Order: sequence, then C-alpha cells, then structure tokens
Amino acid sequence: MNELTINLRPQDHMPLYEQIYVYIKREIQNGKIVCGEKLPSTRALAGYLEVSRSTVELAYEQLLSEGYIESEPCRGYFAAQIEGMYHIGQPKQTQGDEAQVSEKRYLYDFTPNGVDLKSFPYRAWRKLSKDILTDDRTELFRLGDPQGEYGFRNAICHYLYQARGVNSSPEQVIIGAGSDYLLMLLCAVLGREHVIAVENPAYKQAYRLFCSQSYEVVPIEMDQYGMKVEKLRRESANIAYVTPSHQYPTGVIMPMKRRMELLRWAGEKEDRYIIEDDYDSEFRYKGKPIPALKGYDAMEKVIYLGTFSKSVAPAIRLSYMVLPGPLLERYRKNCRFLNSTVSKVDQLIVQRFIEEGYYERHLNKTRSLYKSRHDVLLQGLKPLSGRCRILGEHAGVHLLLEFSGEVSEAELIEKAERERIRVYGLSDYIIRECGREKPTVLLGYANLTEEQIREACRILCRIWKK
Amino acid sequence: MNELTINLRPQDHMPLYEQIYVYIKREIQNGKIVCGEKLPSTRALAGYLEVSRSTVELAYEQLLSEGYIESEPCRGYFAAQIEGMYHIGQPKQTQGDEAQVSEKRYLYDFTPNGVDLKSFPYRAWRKLSKDILTDDRTELFRLGDPQGEYGFRNAICHYLYQARGVNSSPEQVIIGAGSDYLLMLLCAVLGREHVIAVENPAYKQAYRLFCSQSYEVVPIEMDQYGMKVEKLRRESANIAYVTPSHQYPTGVIMPMKRRMELLRWAGEKEDRYIIEDDYDSEFRYKGKPIPALKGYDAMEKVIYLGTFSKSVAPAIRLSYMVLPGPLLERYRKNCRFLNSTVSKVDQLIVQRFIEEGYYERHLNKTRSLYKSRHDVLLQGLKPLSGRCRILGEHAGVHLLLEFSGEVSEAELIEKAERERIRVYGLSDYIIRECGREKPTVLLGYANLTEEQIREACRILCRIWKK
Repeated sequence: MNELTINLRPQDHMPLYEQIYVYIKREIQNGKIVCGEKLPSTRALAGYLEVSRSTVELAYEQLLSEGYIESEPCRGYFAAQIEGMYHIGQPKQTQGDEAQVSEKRYLYDFTPNGVDLKSFPYRAWRKLSKDILTDDRTELFRLGDPQGEYGFRNAICHYLYQARGVNSSPEQVIIGAGSDYLLMLLCAVLGREHVIAVENPAYKQAYRLFCSQSYEVVPIEMDQYGMKVEKLRRESANIAYVTPSHQYPTGVIMPMKRRMELLRWAGEKEDRYIIEDDYDSEFRYKGKPIPALKGYDAMEKVIYLGTFSKSVAPAIRLSYMVLPGPLLERYRKNCRFLNSTVSKVDQLIVQRFIEEGYYERHLNKTRSLYKSRHDVLLQGLKPLSGRCRILGEHAGVHLLLEFSGEVSEAELIEKAERERIRVYGLSDYIIRECGREKPTVLLGYANLTEEQIREACRILCRIWKK
Repeated sequence: MNELTINLRPQDHMPLYEQIYVYIKREIQNGKIVCGEKLPSTRALAGYLEVSRSTVELAYEQLLSEGYIESEPCRGYFAAQIEGMYHIGQPKQTQGDEAQVSEKRYLYDFTPNGVDLKSFPYRAWRKLSKDILTDDRTELFRLGDPQGEYGFRNAICHYLYQARGVNSSPEQVIIGAGSDYLLMLLCAVLGREHVIAVENPAYKQAYRLFCSQSYEVVPIEMDQYGMKVEKLRRESANIAYVTPSHQYPTGVIMPMKRRMELLRWAGEKEDRYIIEDDYDSEFRYKGKPIPALKGYDAMEKVIYLGTFSKSVAPAIRLSYMVLPGPLLERYRKNCRFLNSTVSKVDQLIVQRFIEEGYYERHLNKTRSLYKSRHDVLLQGLKPLSGRCRILGEHAGVHLLLEFSGEVSEAELIEKAERERIRVYGLSDYIIRECGREKPTVLLGYANLTEEQIREACRILCRIWKK
C-alpha cells in the first residue's frame, strides 16, 4: 500500500479530493487494496501527492462515510469489508470519470480552461480579507443590495470605461456569483418567449444553460469574422449570444464591420438583443485592444457580461452584467426582489483589489506570463507548419491547430494521449455539423510552464508530423 | 448642516449607505441643503449616525458620482449646483423608498425578517477565515465541485440528521448562494411543465420567484393546520411549496396528520413533489421539536431547503437543498454542468463553523435570546387579550395578532405609524382574498431588545385598546 500512484489532474472538472477518493474506492472495489490493509496516513499521502492535507482528509472522510475504509484510533485507516454495503446509486458519468482517473495519466494537459494559480496574489488577498473583517462589523453581515454593493459596482464601471471602452453607470450593473448564475437571472428578466442564437462551434456552458432554461437555441455558422449575420437573419432568433473579443472556442476576433452588422440586426426590431460575453478580453498580446461591442451600443441593445473567474481565480464566484435601459426596467420590475448571490465580504475584497491597484498589477503580471507561454507554444509548433495552420492566436489563453486532410481529429487526440498529453478536439464544441469541418485541436497554455510547453511540443511535433 | 437627522432603519431592505445617500440627495433636491453648503466630514457623520465610516463614504461616493456633491481637496464636501444635471432614470419604487426614508421615522420596527446581528460570533468568524486563507493555497482558488464541497455537504448531512431527523447523503445535497438561487436551480431541474401550489397567505419571495420563472402558481387556502390538502386536490398543481415547521407568515406549525396527508397526495402520482422550505426551524421555544417533513419521505417526494441566512447572518449567502432520488438523477443529467455559486473559502468557513461547535453554540445563544424577547412580547401584549388573539407564537422570530372586527388592518398600522412604530399587515402576504380575513398584524422580535419591546408594547396597548 505504499504505492498509491494516483495520477492527479489539477485542471480537471473533478476536484482533487474526489479524484483521490474515486481512485482508492476503485482499488478497494477491484480488490487491489484488500480488506484490513492499512492506508497511508493523511500526512504521508498529502506529502507524496503534493496536495494539502485537508484534501486527503476530505477524500478519507468520504471513504469513511461510505464505509469503504475504517478508522482505528491511534492506529490509522484500514480498508473495510465491503460486501453487503449500502450504496447510494452513482450516476453513469461518475463511473466514466472513475475510469479516467485510474486509466488516463496525463503528463501535460492543454486545457483551454486553465488559469495560472501560482501567480495568484495570496498575500494581498489575505491582507484585504483581514482588513475588511476587522474594520467593519454588523454592517458587513446585513443583507446587501440585490444588485450588489454600490461602491463595487462603481469600481467596475470605472474599470470597464478604462479597459473596455464601455460607458455604464452603477445603476445598470448587476453582480452575481458567476456567469452561469447571471445568465439564469437574465433569462428570468427576458422571459421565456425568445429564440436564442449561439455561435457554432459554441461555448457549450452557455448553450447548455439556455437549453436547461427551456429556450429554443439555434446554432449559427461562423466564418473568419465570427457569427454570420446573414445566416442569423434567416432564423427566427431574436437574441444572439456572442463572444466577439475572442470567440470561444475558435479564437476569432470579430472585426468592426461584423460588429456593426450585428448591432444593425439588433436595432431593427424592438425585442432583439445581443449578449456579449467578454470572458477573457483581459488577455491580448498584439495590436491595440478593440473596445467591447457594448462600447458602440448607442441603441441600448447589448447585454454585457464580464467575470473575475478567468482574470483572478476560478473559485472567485464573481461576475457582472451591464443591462441596457429597457431590460434594466424589466429587471427592476420583475427580478429586483431576488437577493444577491455574493457575500458583502467578497464584494468588498474585490472592490479594494481593484481600487488599490492590485487587479491591474495582477492582470499585467498574468498577461506577460501568458504571452511568454503563447510565444513559446507558437515557436514549439513551427515544425508542424506544413501540416497545419494556427488559428485564434494572439489573444485569450488557447489557440487552435487546423489540420488539412488525411488525419482525423480522433486520431490526433489519440496519438497525443498515448504520449500522455491531453489535447481537445474542436468537434466537442460543435452543436450542428455543417460537413466542412477540418480536424482541429485546441491547445490551452495558461496552466503549463514554458518548459512543459517546450517539451510537450517536441513530442507533439514528432507524433503529428507523420 | 449640523442637523442631518437621518432616521436609519437597519432592518430595512435598503442598505444603510443608500438610506443616507437618498436622504441627502432629497435634501439637496428640495433645497434644504443649498448649493455650496458644506457637508459634515465622513468621520463626523459616521460618528453621529453610529455607522461605520465606509458606509458614509459609500453614500458620499454615490452622491459625488451623480454630481449632487463636489469634493474640494483638504476642504471637504459641498452641495453642488444641480440644475441641468444628467440623471439616469430612477425606478418608481426607489422614489417610494425615498419618501419613506425622509418621512417615516420609526423608533421601533417589528420586522418579521430581522436577525440579531449583535450576537454574531465575529471573532470566531475572523479566526476561521484567517486560518483557512493561511492553511491552504492554490487548491482553495481552483474551481470547486458544482454541488458544493464534499466535506461541507457531509457536515450539513450530520447536522440535518441530528437537528431535523433528515437522513440524507452528501450526494443528495446541493449548496447554493441563497434560497432564491436554489429555487431557480430547482426550476431548471424540474423543467417548465408544472403548476406550483403555494400557501395563501404566502412567503412572497418564493411566490414571486416562481412567477418570474413563468410557472402557473396557484394559491391554496390554509386552516389552523396549514395548507388544506383537499383544496390542493381540486387544483391541477403537481408541486406544493410549503413551510411546515413555522408557516410564513401565519406561524402555523403543521401537525403530523396534515403532513401525512400531504405526503400521501404527493405519493399518488409520479410527477408530484413537495418543496419543504425549513427556513427558520432552528427556533422553537416550547415542546419537542417536530422532525422535518423530509424525515418521513419514504417515497422520495420531498425537496428540502435549508439556509444559514436566518440562523447565522443574512449576508451569509449560503443555503442548501436535499434532492430526492429521481430529481437527483435529473439534476446530474441536465444541470450538474452549472458551476457552484459559493466560493470555497465561504464553504470552508461555515463547514468549520459547524464542525468545531460554533454553530451549535451560536444557535443556543440566539435561541435563548429570541425566546426571552418572545416571552417579553407575549407579556407586553397581555393588556390586549380582550381585543385580539395571538397566533404563531412559540417558534420562529415573529408572531401575529388577529383582531376581531370593528378596526381595519390599515387603521392599526397607521395608528402605530403615528407613534413611529412599524408593524406589518398580514394582507401584504395574501395572494388571493377569500373574504373571511380578519385584520391581523405581524410582529417580529429578532431585531429589538427586551427593553425596546416592553416600551413599544406599552404604546401599542394604549393605542390599540381603543
């Protein structure tokens, strides 16, 4: 039992403790860990896996509560007798995930959803958190403004004006615990009688969200400028969800002309709106930043969505939405009674984080970090230039490799997998096939060091060059 | 300008800084504060109003950003020239609120939504928060489990088992940023094809939420045992939202017989469910606590909702929901992709708050505090015993006074208002009149001291005795 070689995937959707839990559970179910066998101490396993002790404790706690292991005072943890145990049915997906945990072991994971957490400003965060909890007392624990605290909304407006060319007032801003929540709230503001157009390929999270809210969702074809407005016109959709600053997943930056076309489309009918999800606009490595679509929204047609999850940390459940006038009125009439989903403490921390300059410094730091990784990746992929072309570079935290002919996407992914490299197929993001798709893989670089990118590129070039 | 006698209502929906902002804005608009007049310093005003300085700063910041006041370095704040200013349209409700702030000045506010924040365990909270931010690092800022952290869900299950007789597993628990959010999530899990029954009079927040989610909502008549199941049977509703442990607002505790009837109704058809909102079950001052309805849910028909907003502090945006088997599967299939709305830090704080015994101690403390206030209120209302009867006592944080004939509810409220006492009319909670309503007022006592209750009761008895 000294060799619990669990291959942890920190970027994975499944939290680390759960990966450990799932792995050990499986080993017990498979009989690889036999009844009565002693497990390593939480301290030892934490040290071995390089995770915090509380992570291992959580995993053991879950195993204990489900009866897979037993704890003997002063002696430690032991695998239990598992026959006849009561099980709560596990969903099918989890079974699939389990298989992944024990079977797939990745050395390099090019997830497009990564964030570099090593550069997170822990000290500043701790300091702000401590200051806020010391400064204030009862006021901090009273129910706050449903839209979010005024001062925080004000700080966001200043930021949006300077960084994104968006002219908004705090009255228009709504704070929420993540973009998923804000989209749900937006659905309640809009009502149910709408058809929503999404880009194809799409940011699946938003697509699935609209489906879960019972909307009719229509995928709209893209070209190199983004969503095709003439295709949009052929559909009955009255709301278009777009990611113009760096389309997810294709990385397309929508040029001004297409933006104007889209705004014109929205202006033609009263109930048409554009949802602009500006999820990673903070990261741009070349040329002058393009202001947000919302910056040109003279007719009050654009709903703007921004987030701190990408630019600060995924666990910061803090996003914001700027509503145009007509929807603001509807929000106030129908939805303002809904309580805020973000604690005042968190709002104050991020407000001071912005106001005291930490946010800008943090953005500059991660931007330069990501730019270096981006450059190293481009350099490392050069040997493949005859085989494929690079798309969606110079912005965000991922790029795409489009291969011409012969090889299939599945083959590319499988070859990488055999070398324990995880890459992502574009077809996962396609909602409706149009028959002209070329094999394309996504490579995210926020979560890998330059050295890791170099090494992984050497391998990818070798195996993909044919 | 030395007499900014702003009558702050700490229990109000509108945050304190906004009350200050609205008051000063009005004084400027009315010309009571004239152009060029100097405002008190933030420090002075904070001291005078007994609020934190940052509260006043927020109010001034908002006034500054809207151009009502101007700041001169080293000299302070001055009322600005307001003619020709650009205004963003304010919603009608705010206008109403403004009127309240400056015109209604309450000495005693019997809000039924109060929480005693003086007893909030600030030191423990600060300590836990500090420990957690020091202990852990990157792991804490990674995206967490969509359902909430396992260890926290586990702690909630233990609590529910001991305190509410609910047998659940962490797999069934979903953590969310407040009950409003969890109800929205539940709507996505359930889908749109349902008719929802609510108690009449109702907890308006839930009623409005279901309406905002485009459901047909039917109010069901109540008797002294809660929702009438025979009336429910006459409607097409397949989901019943109830508050059996202490009905909001009538305070009715649903007896076992009615609970069984309700469970039987749900068991008769596959798509029938009961939503049990156990919002203030922690507070009960007489007799043995009745286990939650969920404790008898052998047929997996009850969705259980609990919250820390009532029992810890309103700004703690943390509630939880226990799903029965069939809905858990639907959640996993359709909604598990939705990210958690609560930060890991907050989850860990509350988890340790529970596990290290702070929660139980805090509950015991507030329970005994509220019980004393409850007893003082009952004692203070005795002189009215010929005029009205008391309902809904012995649990929660409010009770009701039902008057027999002659006097109208509006009259009772108005009389109290003239003495600067705020009481709440039951008719505000009624969705559909049945014609037999008696004039009834709600008195909440969580937010008033015993002395305040005694004094307010003396006045109420005098003015309501006729």
